[in-house]
Amino acid sequence: MALVNEHFLKLPGNYFFSDIAKKINAYKVTHPKNKLLRIGIGDVTRPMPKACTQAMIQAAEELSRSETFRGYGPEQGYDFLIEAIIKNEYSVKGISFSSSEIFISEGAKSDTGGIVDILRHDNNLGVTDPTYPVYIDSNVMWGRAGILEKETGKWSNVTYIPCTESNNFIPDIPKQRIDILYLCYPNNPTGVSLTKAELKKWVDYALKNDTLILFDAAYERFITRPEVPHSIYEIRGAKKCAIEFRSYSKTAGFTGVRCGYTVIPKELFATTLSGEKISLNQLWLRRQSTKFNGTSYISQRGAAAIYTPDGIKEVNENIAYYMKNALFMKNKIQEIGLNVWGGIDSPYLWVKTPNGESSWKFFERMLYEANVIVTPGIGFGPGGEGFVRMAAFCSMEESEAALERIARSI
Amino acid sequence: MALVNEHFLKLPGNYFFSDIAKKINAYKVTHPKNKLLRIGIGDVTRPMPKACTQAMIQAAEELSRSETFRGYGPEQGYDFLIEAIIKNEYSVKGISFSSSEIFISEGAKSDTGGIVDILRHDNNLGVTDPTYPVYIDSNVMWGRAGILEKETGKWSNVTYIPCTESNNFIPDIPKQRIDILYLCYPNNPTGVSLTKAELKKWVDYALKNDTLILFDAAYERFITRPEVPHSIYEIRGAKKCAIEFRSYSKTAGFTGVRCGYTVIPKELFATTLSGEKISLNQLWLRRQSTKFNGTSYISQRGAAAIYTPDGIKEVNENIAYYMKNALFMKNKIQEIGLNVWGGIDSPYLWVKTPNGESSWKFFERMLYEANVIVTPGIGFGPGGEGFVRMAAFCSMEESEAALERIARSI
Repeated sequence: MALVNEHFLKLPGNYFFSDIAKKINAYKVTHPKNKLLRIGIGDVTRPMPKACTQAMIQAAEELSRSETFRGYGPEQGYDFLIEAIIKNEYSVKGISFSSSEIFISEGAKSDTGGIVDILRHDNNLGVTDPTYPVYIDSNVMWGRAGILEKETGKWSNVTYIPCTESNNFIPDIPKQRIDILYLCYPNNPTGVSLTKAELKKWVDYALKNDTLILFDAAYERFITRPEVPHSIYEIRGAKKCAIEFRSYSKTAGFTGVRCGYTVIPKELFATTLSGEKISLNQLWLRRQSTKFNGTSYISQRGAAAIYTPDGIKEVNENIAYYMKNALFMKNKIQEIGLNVWGGIDSPYLWVKTPNGESSWKFFERMLYEANVIVTPGIGFGPGGEGFVRMAAFCSMEESEAALERIARSI
Repeated sequence: MALVNEHFLKLPGNYFFSDIAKKINAYKVTHPKNKLLRIGIGDVTRPMPKACTQAMIQAAEELSRSETFRGYGPEQGYDFLIEAIIKNEYSVKGISFSSSEIFISEGAKSDTGGIVDILRHDNNLGVTDPTYPVYIDSNVMWGRAGILEKETGKWSNVTYIPCTESNNFIPDIPKQRIDILYLCYPNNPTGVSLTKAELKKWVDYALKNDTLILFDAAYERFITRPEVPHSIYEIRGAKKCAIEFRSYSKTAGFTGVRCGYTVIPKELFATTLSGEKISLNQLWLRRQSTKFNGTSYISQRGAAAIYTPDGIKEVNENIAYYMKNALFMKNKIQEIGLNVWGGIDSPYLWVKTPNGESSWKFFERMLYEANVIVTPGIGFGPGGEGFVRMAAFCSMEESEAALERIARSI
């Protein structure tokens, strides 16, 4: 009989977010009349910009006519989108890229999950703790994370870099070397961002230690403070040590439509065991052309419309709405008397549970007593225990009602 | 410095189809005025059914309005599409599946490339030769294919099951055991199909030898002979030994829009080293929920429209056009005096080069002398040497003109 990849069996039975969905469904079945308010899920609720949906409608119409039909697109994405990205996301900041350094993807989850395919199984890993679970789970599948230590909830081949109340969830530079380091800023789940000076320390660390940084910038569009960089390439030297992942999911409501991109500079190398330097850009191109067939043309046309005057205006309005909501929520949470981080450069709020309650217990109590859904911090790693994530991806009316219910229940 | 996955370095520098594209571009640059006719590429040219594009336009409109906006969908796909598949593709043939056995994908390439993630690195492989290159390349990346033997062009851990003129490209059952066996019928590249009796031999072999069959049915919609099964599950026992991959790419012009599905029956198991049976359905669910975020809602709505009365009619018309073209081409090729297989249950024609010419040489000669693009057989493995693939995915006018040019050039 064929043999399974036993590394999969080391994983907890379910993906964290699937677990939450099951608990919510169980509640709904037993309480069909109660209306739940969701203020934990990282999924947008405002409709897509009309500039994007109009562009997608036009793309679908093109595909219905002989003269304008298109079949397979380039695996790396269409030039019309790649050029819009280079111009609008990077050139404006004085960062130059050639089109072969940008890979259009169907979203940051697929690419942050898939990138580890091009790296050797025995590199060691570093994550800030708490962290987005895909970073670790996708490495577990390759046997790269080691063994899960039951008592600590940590994987043996992973360095957990603590983000705690005492450092305001801004991690300290680790003392040891790390081969592959995941950074996500603005951070999911804590909502905390790094200033340029803070991020520079990480780039310097990576350059000094030959560390590869996998930089997830899926939430960059929510940054409000000018001292916070939108791209790691705003830091000198980052092209030599970092891959950057970007997503249109939260930026412009693409969670259901799927489009993002990954930047792999030509200056970025890793080595063979014998020390030969290999271009990661070339390896990823090989991976994508073998195992991927391009992002939907319709999605790519929708994404390109983000950069039109109408698209810019509508995206700005949506982001402003969410960020106004984030600030409102942050103030409310503080009024309730809970400690909270994030919400300034991010739609996420990281809230300390009252009286040392565990994050699953608080989640369940809020579900059953307040009919409000938050996200338990423990799902993001051991450093998330005692916290929950809230998200501003709801209407102001919903967040107001939800926080009033929470206030009554704690 | 981080270490690269050195298995990638064993691969030939470029993905085969990228190589072809480069050679064509090189010709175009030096001969900008000459119009090339493409009769080799496996990409559709007829526009998508209006039923599909209308459904996609409606889906895009939904996403532009608050009341109907949707964010993340289920990673496994929406029930509206899964149910349409179960009803229209399987129930009508008396095959029953539950919705959790169908995984909506962004196409067969991603899933045939990704499926090997859930299997141990040291399973041995079998492919029919010639074969679709993704099957082998995706395994090379996991270190599962062994070493490429330069003289033979074969990988050391792969059993090549010969498809040759002498067996009419219908492979014989191998004598040895194989852990993981790829079958693609109707076949890419040969265009040859297997009857139910012929496919039954493979299912019986797999059941007897505990072999896992990865069955690529991307071209099932082109089948014309009633004795040829559209699904491997038409054979009794196949649910215990086979995963099936399906694609809307060629069926309904989805090559640029991306949608397909993978079927993993609950009865299908592989084992751990110690012999514990593990459900492959569960492993794939874990893989997809970790590394995939669902297929575009718009693409899924487009795919579901294939099963409406208008969609069925339009798909039938497109398929009939291509198959009429395939038959026309087959006759023309025979008139020219070349030997040809396929084209009955498949849009592909497998053509023997004249006078023992190599497949790259014939490709280049046709490109430069006839301005016609065919696909060199050698790109599909050593068994493809001396052959080229032609495809009926062009207009009748183009195929007629192309074959006249070929007739003058050989």
